Amino acid sequence: MVMEKEKMMEEERGIVVAVDESEESMYALSWCLRNLLSQNTKGSTTTLVLLYVKPPLPVYSSLDATGYLFAGDVLASMEKYTNNLVNSVMKRAEAVYRDFNTNIKVEKKVGSGDAKDVICIAVERLGVDMLVMGSHDYGFFKRALLGSVSDHCAKHVKCPLVVVKRPKYV
Amino acid sequence: MVMEKEKMMEEERGIVVAVDESEESMYALSWCLRNLLSQNTKGSTTTLVLLYVKPPLPVYSSLDATGYLFAGDVLASMEKYTNNLVNSVMKRAEAVYRDFNTNIKVEKKVGSGDAKDVICIAVERLGVDMLVMGSHDYGFFKRALLGSVSDHCAKHVKCPLVVVKRPKYV
Repeated sequence: MVMEKEKMMEEERGIVVAVDESEESMYALSWCLRNLLSQNTKGSTTTLVLLYVKPPLPVYSSLDATGYLFAGDVLASMEKYTNNLVNSVMKRAEAVYRDFNTNIKVEKKVGSGDAKDVICIAVERLGVDMLVMGSHDYGFFKRALLGSVSDHCAKHVKCPLVVVKRPKYV
Repeated sequence: MVMEKEKMMEEERGIVVAVDESEESMYALSWCLRNLLSQNTKGSTTTLVLLYVKPPLPVYSSLDATGYLFAGDVLASMEKYTNNLVNSVMKRAEAVYRDFNTNIKVEKKVGSGDAKDVICIAVERLGVDMLVMGSHDYGFFKRALLGSVSDHCAKHVKCPLVVVKRPKYV
């Protein structure tokens, strides 16, 4: 995880929104802006932290599951791919928050590792007041296999957690 | 479950706060007032629904687990006890929201049954925009036995869910 330990100023309110490639996370961001930040007028001291978590690259073992060796250029192109993904997600997020006329401060953070652990650690280190995340409406089997990131965060973060469902019609 | 099907007016914002005997639920209510409602000024159209769920009375079987027959007066006193509990919880909730100078409309609803199911059904029927609940910091075994109400609600409600943790020092 690449993230500096830093504590929000006490007079500031900090909100982390976990963003990823999904429509659900962009909806959660826009919901957060509408419902938690739109009433902020001048003198506002809210910092919105956009947190994206990259899956870890297979650096410890250069063998994939089927036993093929990853060549250096394959690893390099995988890294390029995830970096492009980060940029693309952050650009989409920017497009979402630029639509809102709020004078909030936006920070972007990129972590790397298992999303549910990285999110919990980041929330604690940043000392924010709220964590907002979208909810993927996985079916029973996918949820059983993957586990739910929001379930994990609800158990482990110490601040209030907002789980935003994306309505079917959006 | 005793609750009428009713839909919030479209121009209104409706927030359900699940309340019970716990400090956690009162903290969640006060967090909600501070963070989601305090910025509402005149012309506000937010309705705050306080929802309390009574455990169901053993009306179908008058035998308890050890085989004793419940006499009518035992059942009556159990019902009186839960009704007292409802009043006491609602009075505590009133004390919490009276401290806040917000012009919100407060409604009180009492359901009966398994809390996690009743909360989900109520949220859907009322058509509210947000569900706020406290989080009981049960240990592993208690959670495994009881299941987590907030986990269940996160999976089943369609609106955004706020799970509020009560800080240790409060």
